[in-house]
Amino acid sequence: MVSPSCTFDATDPLLPVIAEEVGRRVGQGQPLIIAISGGPDSTALLTALAELKETFAWKLTAAHFDHGWRADSASDAQWVADLCQRLAVPLVIRRFGEDHGGTSCPATGREDRGRRWRRRMLTEIARDLGAAWVAMAHTADDQAETVLHRLLRGSGVRGLAGMAPAAPLAAGMHILRPLLAVRRQEIEQWLTARGQTWLRDVTNLDTRQTRNRIRHVLLPLLRREFNPEVDAALCRLARQCRELVEEMTAAAGQGLTAAMLEAMPTLVRLDVRPLAALPPATRREAFRLLWRGRGWPEGAMTFRHWSALAQLADADRGDGAATFPGAIQARRTGSLLRLTAESAPPPDKPTP
Amino acid sequence: MVSPSCTFDATDPLLPVIAEEVGRRVGQGQPLIIAISGGPDSTALLTALAELKETFAWKLTAAHFDHGWRADSASDAQWVADLCQRLAVPLVIRRFGEDHGGTSCPATGREDRGRRWRRRMLTEIARDLGAAWVAMAHTADDQAETVLHRLLRGSGVRGLAGMAPAAPLAAGMHILRPLLAVRRQEIEQWLTARGQTWLRDVTNLDTRQTRNRIRHVLLPLLRREFNPEVDAALCRLARQCRELVEEMTAAAGQGLTAAMLEAMPTLVRLDVRPLAALPPATRREAFRLLWRGRGWPEGAMTFRHWSALAQLADADRGDGAATFPGAIQARRTGSLLRLTAESAPPPDKPTP
Repeated sequence: MVSPSCTFDATDPLLPVIAEEVGRRVGQGQPLIIAISGGPDSTALLTALAELKETFAWKLTAAHFDHGWRADSASDAQWVADLCQRLAVPLVIRRFGEDHGGTSCPATGREDRGRRWRRRMLTEIARDLGAAWVAMAHTADDQAETVLHRLLRGSGVRGLAGMAPAAPLAAGMHILRPLLAVRRQEIEQWLTARGQTWLRDVTNLDTRQTRNRIRHVLLPLLRREFNPEVDAALCRLARQCRELVEEMTAAAGQGLTAAMLEAMPTLVRLDVRPLAALPPATRREAFRLLWRGRGWPEGAMTFRHWSALAQLADADRGDGAATFPGAIQARRTGSLLRLTAESAPPPDKPTP
Repeated sequence: MVSPSCTFDATDPLLPVIAEEVGRRVGQGQPLIIAISGGPDSTALLTALAELKETFAWKLTAAHFDHGWRADSASDAQWVADLCQRLAVPLVIRRFGEDHGGTSCPATGREDRGRRWRRRMLTEIARDLGAAWVAMAHTADDQAETVLHRLLRGSGVRGLAGMAPAAPLAAGMHILRPLLAVRRQEIEQWLTARGQTWLRDVTNLDTRQTRNRIRHVLLPLLRREFNPEVDAALCRLARQCRELVEEMTAAAGQGLTAAMLEAMPTLVRLDVRPLAALPPATRREAFRLLWRGRGWPEGAMTFRHWSALAQLADADRGDGAATFPGAIQARRTGSLLRLTAESAPPPDKPTP
């Protein structure tokens, strides 16, 4: 058996990247789920992982989702099934109607619902197979589109961090994006060089109207009129934002831990001094972490609310009190900040 | 005399903002220079400051720059002179040819040269008048364009911080941008309501070709097709980036101070332990501050160089050495990091 530290053709843009990105996270002999639509990105990811399977002894399972949105979605599923058979990778197919009590997914808001459904299915499949990792085929092009989309929607630095190379999916499960630094064009060339075909159009199933305009109108305009390397610039920015946000979150978490005197679902007592030592943005982040940890309604909090909390924990600030969404009460007395909720609230809606 | 804490018409979008932004920085009776092109933004800024002059007892001086780029630039200067006379604000006019040994500014790269020349002139005028503050009329629209321009050029979070509300100009002198949160449209409405006219086209003197395309093509497209509030989103992002960068720079500065054992122009000895305690991006920033403080060639350093330095100061790292641009040598021995330059290098070119 070839060692996992084997070398690859240096000119191959995919295999070394995938071996590195997946190999340092998914151990030998471990199960790994791959989401496959049949588009170029996921076809390449599955093909590459199948080529690396012997080396790393991963237990691969492909997962295909048939939303029933298009007339030929059944033939897409058949194409994916043929590919998996040829690659000797087991395939799980889930159809939207079968798992959802309906025959098709309604068109309004269906992209969001489709994404939530796919995530739920991936979680189920991973749990069934005891897999801690699910690989998704998002590329550098997807990342650039995501960053631009979020920028235009008004996201802050956290949003501009884009998609993570590895992100939690559910308890003990993570999504892995080994193609996040690879361009779509490289992927198509790689497939073409191997004589491997792919399904056209299916990528559009994943994209909302706005996303399609970003992909097909805005990004081509930006490349042509402003910077041919704009995609790379957006991906670089995403990495930098991710690093900054992670550093701030870590500092906020340390400050919160140092400040915590008592932590119950409806009562938190904090020593403000470790929080007061944090700069304002980091201090606001510490309160966000506190809210998340309690299950308090984070989504209802505005910038003004977080700022008011941060000010309550300021070194120069005397005694004071304020009320926040969900009837959370904050009262500062000396160096003590006491936060109370009337009852343990229902879980907050996930924030984007 | 009206107190500086007087209140203004709450519906006025300019006077309270300018009073707050300028009033908390420029003391009563202090001199203040205002750069004026005659376009709507600087005309409004000068008019508003003239209205506030009595209240705050500022000693205003207007400064107009005639680049000689347009046939009617002399009549622009006359228009500005008439305005200043009516507002009873002294005016200094500088003409490019007179101060520069030529009769006009060449067209190639002239925007950059023009900006550098204006900054030099502003510094001279401020020094002559003993002024610590120079007010410039950049608006929220300018800020949005700057952020978008830098994003497209591939800037990181530091570039996305955009223009600062207050920024160093020269030793003991700062630029002040009191209109940075005000939209150009509000400014034009404010002028119109006062019956105050302005010069058209002059704003374009300040903009390069790319900037004009961002202003006249890209931003209108983004507002129409993606988000009517995209300008506000870009300005909000700039403020957040500025806050994050300032917090990281402060943490980096503290770490560097704690690490510094000896600091001479050609020799620096550092205790790596306070640096090792910093997260990677902050640690790289600490070395940037060190380079800047020494006058070492910061512009020649790449991300790879900063990362190599940060790794040399890592807690897990043993002894090691590396060489950096300008023949800067770094050698780690135990917890000591010793940096040497062969000679004190010439000042580095300013980085963008």
